[in-house]
Amino acid sequence: MTKHVYVKNLKIGGGAPVSVQSMTDTLTSDYDATIARILELANAGCDLVRVSVPDTQSVASLRKLVNNSPIPIVADVHYDYKLALASLEAGVHKLRVNPSNITKDAVKLIATEAKSRNVPIRIGVNAGSSQERLSPKALAELAVDTAKLMEDSGTDQLVLAVKSSNVRDTVEAYRELSKLTDYPLHIGLTEAGTENLGITKSSIAIGSLLLDGIGDTLRVSLTANPVREVEEGRKILRAIGLQKDFVEVIACPTCARTQIEVEKFAKQVELATAHIRKPLKIAVMGCSVNGIGESKGADFGVCGGKQHSLIFKNGEIIKTVDNDCVLQELLKLAEVDYE
Amino acid sequence: MTKHVYVKNLKIGGGAPVSVQSMTDTLTSDYDATIARILELANAGCDLVRVSVPDTQSVASLRKLVNNSPIPIVADVHYDYKLALASLEAGVHKLRVNPSNITKDAVKLIATEAKSRNVPIRIGVNAGSSQERLSPKALAELAVDTAKLMEDSGTDQLVLAVKSSNVRDTVEAYRELSKLTDYPLHIGLTEAGTENLGITKSSIAIGSLLLDGIGDTLRVSLTANPVREVEEGRKILRAIGLQKDFVEVIACPTCARTQIEVEKFAKQVELATAHIRKPLKIAVMGCSVNGIGESKGADFGVCGGKQHSLIFKNGEIIKTVDNDCVLQELLKLAEVDYE
Repeated sequence: MTKHVYVKNLKIGGGAPVSVQSMTDTLTSDYDATIARILELANAGCDLVRVSVPDTQSVASLRKLVNNSPIPIVADVHYDYKLALASLEAGVHKLRVNPSNITKDAVKLIATEAKSRNVPIRIGVNAGSSQERLSPKALAELAVDTAKLMEDSGTDQLVLAVKSSNVRDTVEAYRELSKLTDYPLHIGLTEAGTENLGITKSSIAIGSLLLDGIGDTLRVSLTANPVREVEEGRKILRAIGLQKDFVEVIACPTCARTQIEVEKFAKQVELATAHIRKPLKIAVMGCSVNGIGESKGADFGVCGGKQHSLIFKNGEIIKTVDNDCVLQELLKLAEVDYE
Repeated sequence: MTKHVYVKNLKIGGGAPVSVQSMTDTLTSDYDATIARILELANAGCDLVRVSVPDTQSVASLRKLVNNSPIPIVADVHYDYKLALASLEAGVHKLRVNPSNITKDAVKLIATEAKSRNVPIRIGVNAGSSQERLSPKALAELAVDTAKLMEDSGTDQLVLAVKSSNVRDTVEAYRELSKLTDYPLHIGLTEAGTENLGITKSSIAIGSLLLDGIGDTLRVSLTANPVREVEEGRKILRAIGLQKDFVEVIACPTCARTQIEVEKFAKQVELATAHIRKPLKIAVMGCSVNGIGESKGADFGVCGGKQHSLIFKNGEIIKTVDNDCVLQELLKLAEVDYE
């Protein structure tokens, strides 16, 4: 089990649920645009949000954001340690610094100030931002060395990250890091790309690490509307069973045996049950060959027939219904099981 | 290194490139619809295609498909071993059987006949299709036991698979299986669901295994048009560096520092270079803060400025161009590097 920190009221590490992060893509100095984006992200299920603080105008805006955001705010600061200190002074809930672009003295100054305000710091090492290309092992060591510097200044409210844009290097760096430290880890890729390949890359890297038990908070970094980052982050948690309070529709991949329109039907069920916050598995199977057998993990479901379909629950057929009534029948079962 | 088999002229295992499979969703007995789907899949990059053979009309169609398909065909047979034998007689290139729904005697008969025709068999165990819910370890053992039965009948032209609809169980079952056998492995989930969660589940399961060096051929099983399965399969291979002959656009996730429309621009570059079959990395970065530094892995790229942007190559700025000319500049570089 990792250690934990609190970012405002959000616990990261120490067995807390893996939290989902994103980052605003607005000008932080534009308060209205930025708070609007934060509300959108919070609605999509974002647990904490990062904003970049590249100038003093952003600090002024940050102060208002901190007061009005429904979720904790992380200030992202590069190069200028004074902006980090000003962000702390503005009341930010967490600070992210990159040890490759500030001096050791600045690291210590920031750590001392963060400690005095009880604000955690993420040490976010990036493969690309140091002078030479660092190996996964070197990335992990740089994160740990920076953590030691911060400990010397009295703070152990730390979260570590070692990102690269390469899936294999990222997984290797975090596996290495998790051997070296018990600080909570922020996982993700950097510069993952557009949705096209970025989602696949992030799903594999983040998913592999979570399956290994590595990772306390995550960001799916995409060149896209950041709401997409949150949606994909939630999907990863759902896909590997770390988030269970939703209706999972299990569907067969359809083949020559299929007797109902499985895809259309599965999507209808997904849409109609999207509001239900309870762990339920509903199976939509195109035939009786694999239907009930392959749906043993499902709470209930349907095996499609030509005109009539079989509704089953806990592996037993409970009803044969006309195909027109199948959706209604499944929703009734979902609602009953939901209440 | 695993052993290998040949499916017609396609090598699976033994260090061959990981091949991408899919399955037709047409009635196999409908030759015209099925061959049309196969051509569509082959165009999308499908290396071999599975068709279900649930009846004798399908066998008649299979004979024509085998002659006219540009990619090798796998016959998927359940319950009735006579359909398996008939598929072999029809000249199919590979057979898939599920040991949970045929007898041991049928397994031996099929193996003997496949051996005499030099046709490989996939032993496709599914968590759902046995009487009781099998653990990952039990799935792996069932696959290996069935392989032994087939070896007793003289064939070792085998590919093994142990799928479940659960990411964690699937990864565990294949890790177990790879310890027990050196036969090539077909990896994937079963009943992964619609594109909504199915892509994430498959990416994580298949990606994790491939990162471990497990898997010789894959199917992303989706309740969707099977062309989507092939597209996602290719993405997984690209995401972890197992397929390199394409243009990868690395882009920053955009933030308050961004000075160009990174997402729009990255998508334009992706689209304009989709035809190039050569390993190239092009970076699209929104600012000069992280721009060149974080793009060290890129062959060339752009750091966006307000009116002018920096074009860099191998880490060196080679040009400052007007923002209107950036796309053209990058494509010129891509074509030169391509020729």
